[in-house]
Parts: sequence; structure tokens; C-alpha cells
Amino acid sequence: MTQDLDMAERGVAAPQWQGAARAAAVLEARSVAIVGASADPGKIAGRPLAYMLSRGFVGKLFPVNPTRAQVQGVKSYPSLAAIGEPVDLAIVGTPAALVEGVIREGIAAGVRAFVVFSSGFSETGEAGAALQRRLGELARAHGVTILGPNCLGVANSATGLIASFTTALEETPIRPGGFALVSQSGALGAYWMDICLRSGLGFSKWITTGNECDMDAAAAIAYLAGDADTRVIGLYIEDIRDTAAFRRALRLAAEAGKPVIAIKAGRSQAGAAAAASHTGALAGDDALYDACLRQHGALRVDSLGQMMDAARLYLFDSVPQGRRIAVMSVSGGAGVLIADEAERCGLALPPLAEATASALAPVLPSFVQAANPLDLTGNVVQDTASIGQALEAVARDPGNDAIVLFVGLMHSIASAFTDALAQARQRTQRPIIVIWIGAKEESVAALEQARIPVFRDIPPAVAAVGAAVRLRALREAALAMALPAAAPPAAPGARIEALAECDGKALLRELGVAGVPAGMLVSAAAPDRLPAPLAYPVVAKLQAASLLHKSDIGGVVLNIGSDAQLREAVHRLAGIAQAHGIEARGVLIEPMQPFDHELLLGLRRDPRFGATLTLGRGGVEVELDADVVSQLLPLSAAAIQAMLESLRAARLFQGFRGRGAVDLAALSSQIAELCRIFQAQSDLAEVEINPLAVRGDRAWVLDAVVRRYA
Amino acid sequence: MTQDLDMAERGVAAPQWQGAARAAAVLEARSVAIVGASADPGKIAGRPLAYMLSRGFVGKLFPVNPTRAQVQGVKSYPSLAAIGEPVDLAIVGTPAALVEGVIREGIAAGVRAFVVFSSGFSETGEAGAALQRRLGELARAHGVTILGPNCLGVANSATGLIASFTTALEETPIRPGGFALVSQSGALGAYWMDICLRSGLGFSKWITTGNECDMDAAAAIAYLAGDADTRVIGLYIEDIRDTAAFRRALRLAAEAGKPVIAIKAGRSQAGAAAAASHTGALAGDDALYDACLRQHGALRVDSLGQMMDAARLYLFDSVPQGRRIAVMSVSGGAGVLIADEAERCGLALPPLAEATASALAPVLPSFVQAANPLDLTGNVVQDTASIGQALEAVARDPGNDAIVLFVGLMHSIASAFTDALAQARQRTQRPIIVIWIGAKEESVAALEQARIPVFRDIPPAVAAVGAAVRLRALREAALAMALPAAAPPAAPGARIEALAECDGKALLRELGVAGVPAGMLVSAAAPDRLPAPLAYPVVAKLQAASLLHKSDIGGVVLNIGSDAQLREAVHRLAGIAQAHGIEARGVLIEPMQPFDHELLLGLRRDPRFGATLTLGRGGVEVELDADVVSQLLPLSAAAIQAMLESLRAARLFQGFRGRGAVDLAALSSQIAELCRIFQAQSDLAEVEINPLAVRGDRAWVLDAVVRRYA
Repeated sequence: MTQDLDMAERGVAAPQWQGAARAAAVLEARSVAIVGASADPGKIAGRPLAYMLSRGFVGKLFPVNPTRAQVQGVKSYPSLAAIGEPVDLAIVGTPAALVEGVIREGIAAGVRAFVVFSSGFSETGEAGAALQRRLGELARAHGVTILGPNCLGVANSATGLIASFTTALEETPIRPGGFALVSQSGALGAYWMDICLRSGLGFSKWITTGNECDMDAAAAIAYLAGDADTRVIGLYIEDIRDTAAFRRALRLAAEAGKPVIAIKAGRSQAGAAAAASHTGALAGDDALYDACLRQHGALRVDSLGQMMDAARLYLFDSVPQGRRIAVMSVSGGAGVLIADEAERCGLALPPLAEATASALAPVLPSFVQAANPLDLTGNVVQDTASIGQALEAVARDPGNDAIVLFVGLMHSIASAFTDALAQARQRTQRPIIVIWIGAKEESVAALEQARIPVFRDIPPAVAAVGAAVRLRALREAALAMALPAAAPPAAPGARIEALAECDGKALLRELGVAGVPAGMLVSAAAPDRLPAPLAYPVVAKLQAASLLHKSDIGGVVLNIGSDAQLREAVHRLAGIAQAHGIEARGVLIEPMQPFDHELLLGLRRDPRFGATLTLGRGGVEVELDADVVSQLLPLSAAAIQAMLESLRAARLFQGFRGRGAVDLAALSSQIAELCRIFQAQSDLAEVEINPLAVRGDRAWVLDAVVRRYA
Repeated sequence: MTQDLDMAERGVAAPQWQGAARAAAVLEARSVAIVGASADPGKIAGRPLAYMLSRGFVGKLFPVNPTRAQVQGVKSYPSLAAIGEPVDLAIVGTPAALVEGVIREGIAAGVRAFVVFSSGFSETGEAGAALQRRLGELARAHGVTILGPNCLGVANSATGLIASFTTALEETPIRPGGFALVSQSGALGAYWMDICLRSGLGFSKWITTGNECDMDAAAAIAYLAGDADTRVIGLYIEDIRDTAAFRRALRLAAEAGKPVIAIKAGRSQAGAAAAASHTGALAGDDALYDACLRQHGALRVDSLGQMMDAARLYLFDSVPQGRRIAVMSVSGGAGVLIADEAERCGLALPPLAEATASALAPVLPSFVQAANPLDLTGNVVQDTASIGQALEAVARDPGNDAIVLFVGLMHSIASAFTDALAQARQRTQRPIIVIWIGAKEESVAALEQARIPVFRDIPPAVAAVGAAVRLRALREAALAMALPAAAPPAAPGARIEALAECDGKALLRELGVAGVPAGMLVSAAAPDRLPAPLAYPVVAKLQAASLLHKSDIGGVVLNIGSDAQLREAVHRLAGIAQAHGIEARGVLIEPMQPFDHELLLGLRRDPRFGATLTLGRGGVEVELDADVVSQLLPLSAAAIQAMLESLRAARLFQGFRGRGAVDLAALSSQIAELCRIFQAQSDLAEVEINPLAVRGDRAWVLDAVVRRYA
């Protein structure tokens, strides 16, 4: 099935596939013009042609060089127009000032897509950014695709298209494989291709997107979601501008069953600051990137090594169905180290079944217990019949999802050993992950041929198993996630005003938010004119739009038990307002609400990601040791419940030392309704409820700050 | 300087050097008998002789084999006695049942040390353990050293002694180097030697200790502390029986300036259970091993990879003086990833000095800012004069302790580039840690020759810098740590009784513990006979030795403000005691104590490590989200203050949202005095104070459980 057919079947007009079609115009090019192609295959301008010639590109190549009749043995043309037939793709590496002219010429000549290597655009300042904006406008106006500028191009191992001058391909040719890499950084993309190729991993597609004047990482992901050659998508991002397209692309990948493993730079403060200066774009809030990736099913990792290790399990069909592993080891010590690492990575080592122990008994020395981890002892592993028998016994145990097998050295019997493993893998279909200290290249190749991934040390192997299991769960959960109906409204620069608590609560009540206490506002100027008798105890709170931390200045009086105490409290609060020069809206009097748990709930419109929800443990100590989680809206009640259950404080919700249990389903529904109201009310910039007081199946908005676009 | 001279200088009789002398008897052997030596160099019994012959052992070799006149070309003897001269070391690999006889024969013939490979001892059950105990007794009775049984022996690259049959040396000969490995697991020791040798790391000594009937890991460490060839000690441990000797050995290493990097198996629950079954010894409390290593200056890591990476910085004289690094990178994205990783590893990226920015200006493109991380751009790195200039400018900046430089590919100019780096390293003496994606072997060798460690990916490099910096700080702090005066008393099996709160507090008061509130015990049976008028408010607490969680059954009444309330409270507590069938000691009445912070303080006698102190955040939620740290006694007030400062809650101690600041020095002194009392009072099994209530410079024992050996 070709990519184009695939697009057509799914309806290429659907917005989620528009990016894919844009990317296909580059990646599936069958005729390529190289503007300014050099006769020297070692020069930047000579490499793309040289790579494609040596790799055997399946389509037509048109060097464009007015000074030569032939370039590297291929007929050359003086200009794009002179080629005389429309070409799919033009590679452009001219100085920045000339790029726009070349693209205009190409569009006139019928070129459908461009890869622009040239630097000197937004990364150098405002003048370059203006130049770059014009390229984007050209692409949109003429329906062509432009990749770059300031990128290192693409490679497609299926067609031999290498629209790149990366030196990573100088010594190692690109090899086909199920892994695709999308990188916003050309340099990292190149280094990582080098490492991957030299470690034996092949590529389906390799895509660097650079400054993204038109085609972006989202387009690349959407394309790869429909690419039959791609089984795992690796992603390096620094900054996503069109987050709606990015979310749709991640969804496409999840629906297509393609795992996405992502590195997002700028997790630390120093890193985020550096990222901002490097990409020439605002560095986003890292926690929201984290949320975006997670909730749309992508696994975030911190290094290429972690990405490749997890990808390896997918590429060799060795992703466990669940988190239960059986550990078998030639050394007791190694078994212990694997068990330690497994716990760190969220994996479980359940005991072996009785039947498994019986099946193992004839194989193991009498003093070895059939346990998990299982110490095979060196003797067992040296005997290939025994090791096969032991592996199959453990693989037939329904209590585990995969076997992690540790061996070392064994050079003398390596091939008999790999045969025994391959047979066990074939017969039982249980994933076997091998950690082989000192494995030889040929042993690794033989095992990988048998769909057995091999690692050379314990931590990366166990981390890869944990990561792959987590990724599988993330992807399944992501399919239930909704996408936003529209892109987030652009509201940057709009002035935002904070409402006094009483006004914010009145607004929330008006909008139908549940759990806002019925309070009464009395004038601070006339503290003796109190309302009709109340059901005591009550709380009295000084109200002013400028006052965000009332308790810090003594602006809250709790546990008021009588009219006299209330009068005294209102007097005191009026005095505090005066002393601090606060122009008070009044004093808000609310019934004291008994509760078991305090939550923090924040709703916010992020300029990049749109509406977001933050949930966490509330109270004053939240600043000390944060226990919070953020996600992008829209969110179902089930997704919100999962957020609550992911808090460290989740154990509290089952009831703890005199505090009652929380009805999480009821609480989640109440929060989901609040989220729906916030999303619909586009003039709300922020709602921060701290605390949201919870008891049983009810929650109350005890204190709230509402911010509104003025 | 020979090892023996070194011993003599320090006074070999001192207990801390006794282990070293025992280990030296094995490792410095100059004459070696191989009992049962085989003519086949590939067989287990043939390998030690074959290895030593090919490696050129500097001493004499005596194969013992009654069936042959020569073994592998060396004159053979029918028995140890027949050698006719005393030999330093005998290698024994006979079946377990024969080992004792061979050792007795050897002792009679004047052999001073034995390496016993044979298995079939404590790892197989009680009969084997008894056999093993007899070997230990023989060693002590005759003043000889026995290494093993069930070990893989030792290697000394300085003399060519290879008393091992490990197959790790079959293909790769041992190479000298500054790294020494001590492993309680023979198999892991062998695999790791294989990895290290093939990664280019050499060994000074390689020691596997197996079942440790006599010579243990502590003896090996003590020996290496005085070994001139050893610069870094790597350690793999599962179980330490003589913790006092182990602590003395770590101290020796710290005093000798030798960093110790340790892997301790059994961190997880599953791992600890497996370790217990594997070593045939009780797996210790992992947190106390952690404390023991940390407070005596050893860095604990989780894998051999982490150990080698950190060791590499020491071996190439590249350990930064502090945690401030300057990051220079050929790719902006890589700089961001390094900054992210640095934060995770506790490193800082301070801004560059003004002068550094000026010095960099002529080297960098105009649009690149002189920041940290510094984006050199590809052009700068290709130009070796510029890169040298840039490196020296940053190395002269007093604001950093080391440079982390990221490069990729660059095969065409690799040698000019390595020359430039070597010169900068030479001229500025600032450590330069290089991350070179795609580095060739010869480039790595050239840089290491210039004392520049090279890594091939970001996370291991940054983690190694973080680990080395942490290790340096640990070692410095460890020199101030005291050692226990005596080994922990053996008290296992002794019955332990818990005292009621009132009795425990009375005992603490009697022992001179400060901050125990003056309470009054009234009879629960006669609740109306109350003591003389009190300064209210007070707290009333039901007292019984069996009652450990009073508040769970309502056994604590707070905030009692009058005689009437007190009578009512005592009545109620008496009723609760009756309802729960508790035989109460009475009701304890204490003044209410206002405080700002609650701590948990636990003193305990561990059967393995002796007296220990645990400090943490107190209150009921401590079980939910523990924030605790444990260390072994004795501890100075300064060490205790460092423990308090290491808690997550430490920020609270500076005063937080209405809670006062803590005088940490005063608090630490008070706790140190309590520790001193606990250590001296050997009939106390445990003192748990929760909470220890703190305000300003005072702390009160609000609740306490004291357990005593009965």
C-alpha cells in the first residue's frame, strides 16, 4: 500500500492528515532537483547527490548548476525552469538571501516541495525571522511543502532518497529498519543517526525539521503514523508551536498502533532558558509538554540510549503484556541486582507457580530453590539442553509476562546457547529479554534474528522493559482521551484582572459550579450592621481584589461561634484593611465546612496549550513539597480520576488515621463539570481553588481566585 | 614502597591493619602451589597455571599433581609437603570434602595462605556451613589466611599473580591500571573484569571473596587502602558480617585518599529476599548499609556502568573541585540536554564571567550569546584554533570547576581537534570532560592520554561528574566521622519488653535526657482523685505497655482547660481502657506544649550494625510519605545537624508560614547527647520519640516508646 493510497482511504482532507500529505510531498519524492549541486561529493553541496547515487535512489535526479554540463556524472541543468518537467522536490542550500528567489522559481517550474538547508533565518534575529515568515507564506499560498530552513533534511531508506548533507552517512550507509526519527535539531538528528546505524538499528525514515517555516514535527509524525515501513517513532523536540496539530498527530500514531518515544529538551530551568535562546522560540512550560506527551500516549525519556533501548523491545516483538517478569540468572548476585532494578522501574517479580517449580526440579541443583529471581547456577547454563528446558518451564508459567535472562561470557558454547534460546522463544512465544555481559556481535545478531533483544548491562535492559510496559499502558489510555474541538484562542497580551474572592465565587455560582458555599458579604466600613442570625460556627474573610494571601496578614478569622464574636471579628478585619491600606470589598461570612482532605485545583489558559487542569494536594505546605499533576483539557471524569489516583497523597483518599475515604468517582465528575464550564467560558483566564475541601462524595470551594480577561 | 613496609610504618598490629596483612598474604604471594594442577590449560584446574605462565608471574610456581612429573612444562610435585620449601600461597580446587585435609597438609608444610575455589560449603546448607566454619577456625588457629571457599580467587597485575580460573582472562589478558575491584560474587567479579578490560580500563588488583570463611571484603579494602598501585576501589557486596572491620576499612581508604565506589545488592524487597537465599547469610537492612557506606565516605551506585564512569574521572585526574560546570556544545540542543541532566545530578551551571564573554566574542558568530550552556556552533568546532581559544577562555573563568564539552562526528579533523583539547587541558589544568558522539577508538585513546575522560552519550557523562563530585564531598565529611569504640554487642534472641509511655519517660528522665515533660500519673481506677491544681491547658493520655497507638482508640485528650474538663477526660479514658480490655498503668497528665515542628527520632540497636539513629519528619502522615534518614552511631552534633539538613522538610526549619525557625545547632546538640546516653545504656534496645516537638532552641519528648532487653 503506498502512502498516497493510504491517505486517500482515510480521506486526505481531514485536518489530521493534512500534515501527513505535506510531509509525503517531501518524503515520497520520486524526482529530485539539487540546486547548486557540487561536483565534489565531499562538499556540503555535493553530498546529497553523492549519497543518493551510491545508495541507488529509485527516482530521477536533476543537479542544477549553470557552470557544468554534468555533475558527478549526472546531466546538469542551468536552472530549475530548464529541467523542463515538474519535479517533486528541490533541495536548496543557497545563502539565506537567495532562498526566496529560488523557491519562487521552483514554484513557477512546478516543484511541489522544498528542503531548505540554508541557515540565517529566525535563529539569527528579527530580519531572518521576517525572511522565514515569507517562506511560510509562499508555501501556504501555493500549496507546496517547505521543510526547514536551517534543517539537515530527510532520508527515506525505502526509496534511497537522501535529501541531506549530514556527515553521519559518510562512513555508514543508511540501512532499512522499523525505526523512524523526527528531530527538531539537525545536529542531534545526525549524531543519533550515526549511533543508531553503528549499533545495528536501521531506519525507515529520518526527518529533521529545523526552523519549521511550514512542515513541522507534527506533520512528520502524522505521516509516519500512516507509513507502513515505520513501527516505532522516535522524537526530539524543543518547541511545538501548533500544539493542536501535534496532539492530532500523536493521536494518529496511537490509533495506528505506533509507539512514540520522545525526548523534550528544557526540563530544567537552565535548560529551558538555553532552549529559548537556541531555537529562537519561546520555551514552553515543561510540565505541560510532559502532560501533552503522556496523555496522548507518548513515552518521554531523557536520552537517545533510553529511546533506543525501549524501541528495541518493540522492534523485536518483545514488549511484555504486563509488568510481571521472571528473572533467570547464571549468577545469584546478578539476579538480586535485576530484582533491585525491576522495583525501581515499576516491574514485579511474582513467585513461580507450583507446576513451574516441579518442571524445574530435574534441571536445578538440589540446593537451589525454584524462586524468582531464579539462580540457574553456571552449570545449568553451560548445558544447553537444561537451559532450554528451564526456559520453557518458566515461559509456560502464566504468572509472568516476560523472561529476563542474565548470562555472562560463555564464548565457547555461544552458538549452541543461542540456538537453545531461539528454540524456546519460538516454541513458547513468551518475550525473552537477554542481558549478556560480554556478548559477541555474532551472538547478538543470532538472537535478534530470533526476536530476542540483547542488552549488555542490567540497568538499561530492565529500564527498557519498564519503559516499554509503561508505553503500552500510556498508548491504551490515550485512545480514550478527547482532543480539543478547536485550537486554543490566541489571547496573549490581553489584560487579566483578578476578582476578589466574593466576586469570583459569585461568578462561579452563576456559571453553575457546584460546591460554592453560600456566603454573605458585609461592609467593612459598617461592622456593626450584621446580617440576620447565622448557623454558627462561621468564618469571616477580608475581601479585596488585591489580596491573594489573606491569612498571611491575619485576614481570616475561623471558628466564630456567636454574634458577639462575629462583630469582634469584622471589627478586627476592618482594622487590618485600614492598617495595610487595602481598599476592601467587605468581609465575606461563610459557614465553617467540616472536611477530611484539602486539594488544590487550578484551571488556566496556556497561550500554547490552551485550557489546562492542575490537581494536587492542598494546604499551605503544598509549596514545600509539591504533589501535583497537570493535564490538558478536555478531560473525562475517568481521566480526572486517574490524575487524582496518580498523586502521592492518593493513599489518603482511601481514608487514613481518622480521615474519611473520598468518593473519587463523585469528586471526579464534579471536577469534570467544572472543567467543562471553564472551557466553554472563554473570558475566564484562570480559576485557582485552594483548598477544594473534600469529604465523602462532596467537595466545597473554600477559597478561590478567579482571573478574567479584561 | 612495598606493602609490607607500608604496614610496618603504620604499625601492623593496629586492628585496622590486621585485615590488610591477612589480605597481603594472598595478594603479595611470591611462591604459589597449585594443588591438582591440570596439564590442560583450558580446564578449570589448568587455567591458573596457564594464566600465570603466559602473564609472566614474577615468583615461583609449584604444580602439585602426583600423576605427572611436569605440568604445562613446569616441574610437578606429588604433594604440598614434597615441595620441600614453604610456599606463600596454595590454590585449592578439590571437592569440598577434601579441602580441610589439603589445608591441614599445607599448614604443616609451611604454606601461609590459601585460595579455595571449591564450592559445596555454606551455600549448600548446614553440613556445608559446618565444614566452612572448620576452615575459618583452622585459619585463626594457625595464623594463615584463607580466601573463599566458593570464590573465584584474585589477580595482581603488578606481579602477574592470577590465582583464578575465571574465563574472563581467556581472551583478554589482565592489564595494569589504577582500578581495584573487590567482589563478594565470583561470577559478577568475572563478568565485570571482562567488561572493564575490554573497555580499556586496567586493574591493580582483582579480588573475589566468596563465602568469606576468613578473609573478607573488609580485609581486601584495608589492603587496597595501603596499595600504592590502587587509585580507586570498586566494591560489590551482598552481606557484611563484621561491620566494625568494614567501617574501619572504609575509614582507612578515606584516610588514604582512595575513593570507594560500591554496589550493594538487595536494595528492593524482592532483591533482599533473593540475596538472603543466595549468600546463605541474612540480608541486612538495606537502609543501614546505605548509611554505613555514605557516612564512611563510599559512594553507592547501582551498576558497574555507573561505577566505571565515576572511576574514570578519578583515574584521569578530572574530578571537579565543586559542583559548578561550564557546558560547551557544538549543538544547541545538546547543550540543553546536558543542562537538564546536570540539574538532575545536582550540578550547577553558573553564568559566564564578563571577562570570559569578552574573550569569547572574537570566536563566536555574532548572533550567539556567551551563555552557559555555550552554543559553539558547528563552525567554531571545525576550526581547531578557535576551539582552543574558546576552551581556554572558559577554563580561565573562576566561576566553574570543570568544562563539559559536547561534540559529534568530526572524523575528518579528529586528530587536530584532540591536539587542541590536549593543549587546553595542559595549559589551564581545568578538568575537561568530553562527550563525543561517534568518537573513534584512537581519538578516545589520545584524549585519555591527555587526562581527558571521554563519554559517548550525555546521561552517563553528566551522571559521572555528579557522582564524582558527591563522592569527593562524602569522603571529606567521612574523615570527621567517629568509629564505634567496640563491636556491637551480640544481643540476638534476647527478649525485648516495651515500657508504657510514663515508665519510658521516667527512665529517660532518670538517665538525664533533656526535654522530657514533667507529667503526673493518676490512677484510671480512681478518676476523681485528681492532683493539685495545674497550669492549664494540659493533655491526658491513657498509659499501658501494650498500647502503642493511643490516638487510634481515642486514648489522648488534648487541650484540657479546667479541673472539670480534666475529671471528665480521665473518666472517659478509664472507660476506653475498660472497653478495650486494656490493663492500664493510669492516665498521664502533662502540660500542653506549644511547638512549631514535629520530628520523629528513633534509636535502635541493630544486630549487625549496632546503635543507629533515625531522624525524620514526625506526625501521623510520616507513614504516608516518609522523609527520614538513618545513620550509624557514634555521631557528632555536626553530623546530626547535617542529617537534619538533608531532610526534605529542612526548608521548614528556617521558618515557614507562621512557624518559627529552628536553632539547628542547639537541637543537634540535644540529640547528640541523647545518642550518647543511648549508646552507653546497653540494656536499651530502642527509643522511639514521635513526636519530638521543636520550637526555637528547645525540643520536647511529647510521646515516646522505650524498649528494653528483658
